[in-house]
Amino acid sequence: MNNQINQWLNELTIEEKAELCSGKDFWTTQAVERLGIPSIMMTDGPHGLRKQAGESDHLGLNESVPATCFPSAVGLASTWNRDLIYDVGVALGKEARKEEVAVLLGPGANIKRSPLCGRNFEYFSEDPYVSAQLAAAHIKGVQSEGVGASLKHFAVNNQEHRRMSVDAIVDERTLREIYLASFEGAVKEAQPWTVMCSYNLVNGEYASEHKRLLTTILRDEWGFDGLVVSDWGAVNERAAGVGAGMDLEMPTSNGVGTQKILDAIEKGELDEQALDHAVTRILDLVIKSTSQKDLTDVDMDAQHQLARKVAREAVVLLKNESQLLPLEKSQRIAVIGELAKKPRYQGGGSSHINPYQLDNAYDELARFADSISYAQGYDLEKDKVDDQLIHEATECARKSEVAVLFVGLPDRYESEGFDRDHMSLPTNHEALIRSVLDAQPNTIVILSNGSPVEMPWVDDVPAIIEGYLGGQAGGGAVADILFGVESPSGKLAETFPVRVEDNPSYLYFPGEGDRVEYREGIFVGYRYYDTKKVKPLFPFGHGLSYTTFSYENMTVSSRELNESDKVAVTIQIKNTGSVKGKEIVQLYVQEKHSSVVRPEKELKAFDKVELEPGETKEVDLELDRRAFAYYNTDKEDWSVESGEFELRVGPSSADIALTETISITSSEPTTFKVTRNSTIGDLMQSEHAEKLNQFLESHFSDSPFTPDEETEAKSEEGGSDMMSEMLKYMPLRALVNFQPSKEANEALEQFIKECNQSE
Amino acid sequence: MNNQINQWLNELTIEEKAELCSGKDFWTTQAVERLGIPSIMMTDGPHGLRKQAGESDHLGLNESVPATCFPSAVGLASTWNRDLIYDVGVALGKEARKEEVAVLLGPGANIKRSPLCGRNFEYFSEDPYVSAQLAAAHIKGVQSEGVGASLKHFAVNNQEHRRMSVDAIVDERTLREIYLASFEGAVKEAQPWTVMCSYNLVNGEYASEHKRLLTTILRDEWGFDGLVVSDWGAVNERAAGVGAGMDLEMPTSNGVGTQKILDAIEKGELDEQALDHAVTRILDLVIKSTSQKDLTDVDMDAQHQLARKVAREAVVLLKNESQLLPLEKSQRIAVIGELAKKPRYQGGGSSHINPYQLDNAYDELARFADSISYAQGYDLEKDKVDDQLIHEATECARKSEVAVLFVGLPDRYESEGFDRDHMSLPTNHEALIRSVLDAQPNTIVILSNGSPVEMPWVDDVPAIIEGYLGGQAGGGAVADILFGVESPSGKLAETFPVRVEDNPSYLYFPGEGDRVEYREGIFVGYRYYDTKKVKPLFPFGHGLSYTTFSYENMTVSSRELNESDKVAVTIQIKNTGSVKGKEIVQLYVQEKHSSVVRPEKELKAFDKVELEPGETKEVDLELDRRAFAYYNTDKEDWSVESGEFELRVGPSSADIALTETISITSSEPTTFKVTRNSTIGDLMQSEHAEKLNQFLESHFSDSPFTPDEETEAKSEEGGSDMMSEMLKYMPLRALVNFQPSKEANEALEQFIKECNQSE
Repeated sequence: MNNQINQWLNELTIEEKAELCSGKDFWTTQAVERLGIPSIMMTDGPHGLRKQAGESDHLGLNESVPATCFPSAVGLASTWNRDLIYDVGVALGKEARKEEVAVLLGPGANIKRSPLCGRNFEYFSEDPYVSAQLAAAHIKGVQSEGVGASLKHFAVNNQEHRRMSVDAIVDERTLREIYLASFEGAVKEAQPWTVMCSYNLVNGEYASEHKRLLTTILRDEWGFDGLVVSDWGAVNERAAGVGAGMDLEMPTSNGVGTQKILDAIEKGELDEQALDHAVTRILDLVIKSTSQKDLTDVDMDAQHQLARKVAREAVVLLKNESQLLPLEKSQRIAVIGELAKKPRYQGGGSSHINPYQLDNAYDELARFADSISYAQGYDLEKDKVDDQLIHEATECARKSEVAVLFVGLPDRYESEGFDRDHMSLPTNHEALIRSVLDAQPNTIVILSNGSPVEMPWVDDVPAIIEGYLGGQAGGGAVADILFGVESPSGKLAETFPVRVEDNPSYLYFPGEGDRVEYREGIFVGYRYYDTKKVKPLFPFGHGLSYTTFSYENMTVSSRELNESDKVAVTIQIKNTGSVKGKEIVQLYVQEKHSSVVRPEKELKAFDKVELEPGETKEVDLELDRRAFAYYNTDKEDWSVESGEFELRVGPSSADIALTETISITSSEPTTFKVTRNSTIGDLMQSEHAEKLNQFLESHFSDSPFTPDEETEAKSEEGGSDMMSEMLKYMPLRALVNFQPSKEANEALEQFIKECNQSE
Repeated sequence: MNNQINQWLNELTIEEKAELCSGKDFWTTQAVERLGIPSIMMTDGPHGLRKQAGESDHLGLNESVPATCFPSAVGLASTWNRDLIYDVGVALGKEARKEEVAVLLGPGANIKRSPLCGRNFEYFSEDPYVSAQLAAAHIKGVQSEGVGASLKHFAVNNQEHRRMSVDAIVDERTLREIYLASFEGAVKEAQPWTVMCSYNLVNGEYASEHKRLLTTILRDEWGFDGLVVSDWGAVNERAAGVGAGMDLEMPTSNGVGTQKILDAIEKGELDEQALDHAVTRILDLVIKSTSQKDLTDVDMDAQHQLARKVAREAVVLLKNESQLLPLEKSQRIAVIGELAKKPRYQGGGSSHINPYQLDNAYDELARFADSISYAQGYDLEKDKVDDQLIHEATECARKSEVAVLFVGLPDRYESEGFDRDHMSLPTNHEALIRSVLDAQPNTIVILSNGSPVEMPWVDDVPAIIEGYLGGQAGGGAVADILFGVESPSGKLAETFPVRVEDNPSYLYFPGEGDRVEYREGIFVGYRYYDTKKVKPLFPFGHGLSYTTFSYENMTVSSRELNESDKVAVTIQIKNTGSVKGKEIVQLYVQEKHSSVVRPEKELKAFDKVELEPGETKEVDLELDRRAFAYYNTDKEDWSVESGEFELRVGPSSADIALTETISITSSEPTTFKVTRNSTIGDLMQSEHAEKLNQFLESHFSDSPFTPDEETEAKSEEGGSDMMSEMLKYMPLRALVNFQPSKEANEALEQFIKECNQSE
């Protein structure tokens, strides 16, 4: 332990220690002036700094200082670009340093269980591997500047509905493989300074006092050595939280938490050592963050350019029939929809920042185009169809060669604090699309939204761009893509279902009262659509380019391996089109035969490469033990089974270009304890097969289960399958029902004893 | 208690009592000759008597005496005709009396969770109401002859895979509303003499020693006063079974069970009174069944005619484009498919009987048709395509005016003892259909199968008949339908999904190892397809006729009622076609807004009426409290909520002709205990709303949650929904985080106390 921390610990009174465990006000920690322990500041900020201007208010809703607004996490995720997200982290870290902010409250690594979750825009993906990888890149970038990140909201916080009281009921395998895996990967790879616990309960316990999550799993299993901070107001019983490993309550509890800690220690309900652990971690964070050097100036133009670069890579080209895109400058272009001038570029709630600058798509398009016209199309503040606006827009489209139609979800549709209850665009946006399409078949739809929408018009629109929430430079980025300044290279990190009912959580989301059951289990996102063969609107990993790529020459380092071996996979990607482009190469793994139910395939590696026209590059991917493992609840650990695994490489989850099959020999011990209820079929597959045959022959020689001529004859009547299957599934105990011998039962007990001794 | 039983109980030794609790051999109970207690016989028989000829063997697989083979339960269910199924019960009872059989082992009331379950043909429906109603009719018919029925397999036995060791994990609401409801209705309405417990475990306990199922629910709650018998070999620990209410172990345990009972009583692990309960019920059954009068002769021709009548009503006309059916006698008809001559008319396993007579469709069709030809088409014993057979069949079809094509599932596909792993017809049947269709567009497909199959050719075949497993007279019944002797009137009591993946249990069936989780919960069958909007191949309740019906003049006895009131619903049905026909009128209920997740609609009443052309009849249906209730796991009872319910009447689940909305006022008490974690939104909806407002004003007057001009202004930035939603979901405890007052917490505790006192 740091000497300074040790010294402070010795000098602090128990009251001061307890006081340190909750905030001084909305944004800062307690100081202890007599010892020179400073207060440090934490602020919101996954995609930009939200530092309150002036004094903090009770809810932290005052105006905040201007900051660069990068694309929301959903947009960052669509880049699938670790390096770029690292750069965003660095940029955020710089602004935090300038404003003397010690910890940025992000990124969010919750899994997108339902497209309806109001906070999906703040999360990366439906897939834990993508989510963990990108969260790690984000954290590393921020922390490279000496600013702490706060990985949130830990854990199983996948809805806003009743988020402060809902109990998420999730089975252990699903917890491990999906919901925790997203955090596990980020913690192990990036070691965030802090992890933020969530509001909800997990399997009956508040996340803020869940010792198994906060200590056993997070610290003991994953090796997290930072601090756990509560989500703002997530503390239930403060003393229980300290015991569970929840170090810092935020915001202030106005002395209530402090008193509860002191009372619990006095009553012997809380060990003082637990308080010391929490205080140690708080002091450690204070020391880390005060060793940050001052930064007086940040080049805000450079920040804006980075925001535009990221927003460009975040754009996903969903559809581009007859190569309608990119546009020519000489085309007569109708820009339609109020969102072209009043962009929706970030989500609502605690992450909502005050942008330093704000581009809009109309102005940016006007810079490129020779001839551009505009029609509002709808009132962004209303859902109601305005016939006059639609008429004007339709005429505007009719008179042009191409219509660029901006539609999406207004602020009031998506926010922290509540979930959507449907996946439709506003009625007036829908009506506008239909009307413009009738007048102008060359229509490009540009979507601004933080989470999937239904597209009943998908077959009629030749080109669709998913712009997500692109940050302050999103307008320029869309213009760059539309005019081919850069080829689009984003891909969906989430599935777009055709209808909300198709989503796997549909029947169980957002639950009943304060209880939500994750009944779909591990079948989240593409794991469900693939396995249930439900065709999505746009599959996970999908995204087009203005160029084309070919996948060639897949090789694996070994086709026969042991479960602890790593496998190197290489493929060659060639740019077979005529413009420069980037491709996101995805590697999925399928276990051919498993003793547990597994998804059709799971993403286990990816990379993004840039290629000049005609250029070929080798992409190297690596798979380790975990890529083949499932969480074995009997063993309470990850298991790899012996057998064949197919490695599938391609441009999306629905488009696999190359496959290789490898064979793994697992060295995990299989202990098979024989009981009266072991089935004959299982025994026949085990090391006890020969002994069982001997036993059956000596004690059950006239048993109907020892095939003879008579039963063979019966099999011709179609009874064969039934007899063999009945035998297979029959437990040993049932033998005595079908064998007239009083000694049978004793012999059976003896046989079982011998089987278990022989091991 | 009966005097005779009392006397016997006093005279029996404890050893004799214990001995009585398991069988003498495969089919009969123990006798006690010194007291004149006779042995009685039980045999298989849901759709026909399977009494072993000669001595019983260990597995009961010897040849059985000839008996009338009625359609399997799946066929009986398709009639939706309670009276007809009662008549079948009477007919079965007569044959049992003649053969001196005391108890017939049927009917089966398990729910069809997956179409893959190998024993689905022995079960009625995916819907618990239909299943319970038809099982009750069956039991009443059998028992009217003084023969006992055995309602089986109790409970949650919905797969054959590992059936003797699998643990069915099912939540309480699903158990009550779906899996138990099917038994509950039958027990309450028909009081079967016996109930047979199943092989599997239910939530961790063997059904054969599940005290909650066998005593608390079956006897105490439902009022069952008969005997519980084990499925053959279902006993795990015999003494535990006696304690749980499992009276009679079958078949013989060869003394093992007897000894275990005696040992357990000696060790004090089993109360002797529990043994007396079991013996009392065994003696009661003996007395009941020996009071049956002898029956020396049964009119087997009349039985056969009844079998044909039932089989006719079991036929479901799935599709009939351009009124291709009924056929004209003068048409040149090609009969194709070996199943036309070698019918598949019953399923494999314990229910497989030796038919007294066996009709085949080819011979029966030949009686009607002027010109008929035949081609085998495939080898029923093989899956492999035989090009020569297909060629002959195709030529035969080409030369005719119409082809009647018999395809289906051979015996080896469906049986007790194992489940299917796909829903396809054999490859050679599929190939035959394609080839015949190419040569003869006027093709009618007749299916013989016990459970749904996929029909990739459904759009290309103009007429499809589901013949199910029609019993010994099934061939004649199909001929009657094809030639219009009677208009088809069967309807599906199960959904036919397009693909096996569409089934709600697909991802979780048949489970992992010895554990199967019923994760789809209450969403079984049409409850799932309707709610998830998954279009089935043919919906639940579907079936066509040669005539047409109109639904008119729906009335309800009251539109405003209390939750204990009954509602009478009447509609007028008119035969608007030109031939006589029967219509199955279905009444579904939908709760408009519920605090728990409920299916889109649920069947709660049905009736079948016969109408001459032009005739109108009134159909009277009644709904009681249960029709509107869901199982409330908090209250551990059925609950009806206040609100609106839509009553939907129509010819199938996918075709609702008439609706009425009623309003129910429930008198169930709602007690709302206030805690620190009660949300503000819930309180604002409760009787404490006013008190809460006062409290907030006096202690949190400058709280951001008391709307003022400033926050109103914010709402224009789109923050309004977020603020109000955050407040709604915020627990009381969180107020102190957002309010700088040390007294806030104490005031809060006081407020909570007062709320709870005021109740």
